[in-house]
Amino acid sequence: MQGSREKGAPICVGLDPVLEKLPEEVRHGVDGRSAADAAQAIYTFCSGVLAAVAPYVPCVKLQSACFERYLWPGVEAYHRLIDEARELGLLVVADAKRGDIGISAEHYAAGCLAEPTYEDMGELAGPDALTINGYLGADSIEPFLDVARKQGKGLFVLVRTSNPGGDALQSLTLSDGRPVSDAVAQMVATLGGGAADIGESGYSLLGAVVGATKPADAARLRLIMPRSIFLVPGYGAQGGGVKDVLPCFNKDGTGALITASRSVLFAFAKNTQVDWRSAVREAALQMRDEVKSGIGW
Amino acid sequence: MQGSREKGAPICVGLDPVLEKLPEEVRHGVDGRSAADAAQAIYTFCSGVLAAVAPYVPCVKLQSACFERYLWPGVEAYHRLIDEARELGLLVVADAKRGDIGISAEHYAAGCLAEPTYEDMGELAGPDALTINGYLGADSIEPFLDVARKQGKGLFVLVRTSNPGGDALQSLTLSDGRPVSDAVAQMVATLGGGAADIGESGYSLLGAVVGATKPADAARLRLIMPRSIFLVPGYGAQGGGVKDVLPCFNKDGTGALITASRSVLFAFAKNTQVDWRSAVREAALQMRDEVKSGIGW
Repeated sequence: MQGSREKGAPICVGLDPVLEKLPEEVRHGVDGRSAADAAQAIYTFCSGVLAAVAPYVPCVKLQSACFERYLWPGVEAYHRLIDEARELGLLVVADAKRGDIGISAEHYAAGCLAEPTYEDMGELAGPDALTINGYLGADSIEPFLDVARKQGKGLFVLVRTSNPGGDALQSLTLSDGRPVSDAVAQMVATLGGGAADIGESGYSLLGAVVGATKPADAARLRLIMPRSIFLVPGYGAQGGGVKDVLPCFNKDGTGALITASRSVLFAFAKNTQVDWRSAVREAALQMRDEVKSGIGW
Repeated sequence: MQGSREKGAPICVGLDPVLEKLPEEVRHGVDGRSAADAAQAIYTFCSGVLAAVAPYVPCVKLQSACFERYLWPGVEAYHRLIDEARELGLLVVADAKRGDIGISAEHYAAGCLAEPTYEDMGELAGPDALTINGYLGADSIEPFLDVARKQGKGLFVLVRTSNPGGDALQSLTLSDGRPVSDAVAQMVATLGGGAADIGESGYSLLGAVVGATKPADAARLRLIMPRSIFLVPGYGAQGGGVKDVLPCFNKDGTGALITASRSVLFAFAKNTQVDWRSAVREAALQMRDEVKSGIGW
């Protein structure tokens, strides 16, 4: 991923803001009765996090749900933060996990991935990549691919998720012996495997979400999707450590983007000796060094 | 579904507005360069559709993608329309197909399904039901169930979709001989099968999306999920007719909600002899009569 070498490691800080967990100096007693005030508080917090981590990490991921909760003021904050992160030179993954068919998928691709072209929304940049759900099949992915191809963006299809319940469907065995997740992986490898979709890095614009808590699955999925970048959530708070994420990389130490959210974002709760921004920065640096050392960069 | 008997048939009109297809008298030359103007135009159109169909159909479904395309002004229009539809006595399905884990799922449940409690957003009602994607497993569904249980709302899990590409994953055969969609159906039947989740109607608050274009699958899925209401998109423009949707019903003619979007919403394009609202109303009435007659109500 662009910027990973310069900044030391292919890591991503997840912005999943939760009002109740914000530092009191940011929250100022905002209790969520006003959507606009709540959106402003999480915007201020995330803006501070972006400034704190931008010099040290290549990428951030914004969790759309945390913003949608505050209706349209939250959605505005989400788009403003995407723009702000891009201005700071960060790669931005929009974690919205959208999935629909036909013209609905086209609309999601236009609203959640494409560069905005509106004349009345102020300065706005779109994200570099979007997470999508492939349960509806290839024709639900194609409209997103169209935008990604035209605008040089990326996609991460949910293949193997980090939550305990992910097994229920993703680990079911198919009649040919493969788990369901491998069939989704094969769809990703096929759809994004054309020469035109492979960039200078050797990786496709079509990536995959593979949870850090499933190392055995990651090793198998790495072979099925050699050209896909893995977005790997679940590092840190969800229990995945540096050894667990190693199978997500190709042998040359490339091909994965390791994501931590809560362990970095709310680091100030456990590190009260320093300013909250410093605590977040320190946690990001610690994660960077762990991953850098683990993959041997 | 509540209101279906009074209004003659269990049908749902899908609001999937597309700016370029609006009647010129509503669109007034708006070309999409202004997100606020585009959101206003689709709001005005949908508001007219709601008024036209409310006396004749029990339910509407709003396609979130069509509104999210216009960023936060679109999202505001979406929420205003949900409130307006509820005021008109319509049941409202929010078709947002959300799916995530843990606290992200809680945030989606709060923002996309729950009754809004904000003091600064004006009069707002939440939808009666939400579509969700179950690829991430039961723990991605539970947070939505919590809200549905507490607030008397419903959910429709994507089980078998109406698009051609849906087969790629949903029709794969598992080692026990079932297709993948049947495993998702079993998860729905189990999760929503508790006595407390079954309403007076005999149906669970946890329903399923089953496309109108897959009648053979629908018959099988009906047996797996006898207590789930099926939300059946794909009637009309997507090729599913009244015979195709009959297997979605239980033997007593209940248990399915048949949805048409484009064939009703844009009926004025083919019926230019009357006002656009009348054309939409006529198409809704025609669909109502077809379904009513087909299921023998």
